[in-house]
Amino acid sequence: MNKEELLTVTALNSWKLVIGRFDQGLTNLSEEQLQKQIAPGKNRLFYLLGHLTAVHDRMLPLLGIGERLYPELDETYITNPDRALPDLVSASDLKKAWREVNTRLTAAFEGFTVTEWLAKHGSVSEEDFVKDPARNRLAVVIARTNHVSFHSGQAVLAS
Amino acid sequence: MNKEELLTVTALNSWKLVIGRFDQGLTNLSEEQLQKQIAPGKNRLFYLLGHLTAVHDRMLPLLGIGERLYPELDETYITNPDRALPDLVSASDLKKAWREVNTRLTAAFEGFTVTEWLAKHGSVSEEDFVKDPARNRLAVVIARTNHVSFHSGQAVLAS
Repeated sequence: MNKEELLTVTALNSWKLVIGRFDQGLTNLSEEQLQKQIAPGKNRLFYLLGHLTAVHDRMLPLLGIGERLYPELDETYITNPDRALPDLVSASDLKKAWREVNTRLTAAFEGFTVTEWLAKHGSVSEEDFVKDPARNRLAVVIARTNHVSFHSGQAVLAS
Repeated sequence: MNKEELLTVTALNSWKLVIGRFDQGLTNLSEEQLQKQIAPGKNRLFYLLGHLTAVHDRMLPLLGIGERLYPELDETYITNPDRALPDLVSASDLKKAWREVNTRLTAAFEGFTVTEWLAKHGSVSEEDFVKDPARNRLAVVIARTNHVSFHSGQAVLAS
């Protein structure tokens, strides 16, 4: 492995670790436990799971991996706050969607060449990317990893 | 900038962004507000700040940057849970320590060559590092960035 590859593997390890920990926490939760709030009056675990699934699903087109699998989640779990709209799916279907999206992303990331990691993502213009080539796909994956960590810190408060 | 450098700059941007956001949140908090808990019966913001400062201070020797500045924080903010021991310092001194440690770390990271990013950190043995060269300094910085994100997700609940 050359230096460039080792750098991308190091970042990808972090994605896998953070997703793996969140997933492990989820596996042990019943449908009822997923309805718990992280703190009084705050988001339910179910909402956090829907939110993370929708945000990760958006990465598929953003990083040129493919079409979205669950665009219908956005309105309930991104656009609106928790409990504004009824849940769209059962807990087991939502867990399945979460895993499907992440499995697809991780498989794609494992196949990225260094040039693909450093390619521009779908939300930055050609002009802006020339000015700041750090607005690349790796930056998106590192940001989303931190986003999962942010909500993981909240999720542990419910237990 | 070559590809290797661009990869490390991308990861370093994430560190700066996450630290900067946490810092911005802190700046607006009074001594009294720092005593708030993130949720009933959970850690105070003050404890989180002490905890993150101590953990980051440990990075100085871990990453070969220098001696620790505030080793006395560990017992109160790492070894023991919140409120087990009285606070060691005032809020303004703790904020100052937090900023001093991070300023020192960020300056060192900005000077790291790619080879230094990929060097082993202080908690991995030579044997283990040969087996898994992804246990390098970059891995530590990405992990600590996610650790700040984890507690940032909690800190926002107090407001």
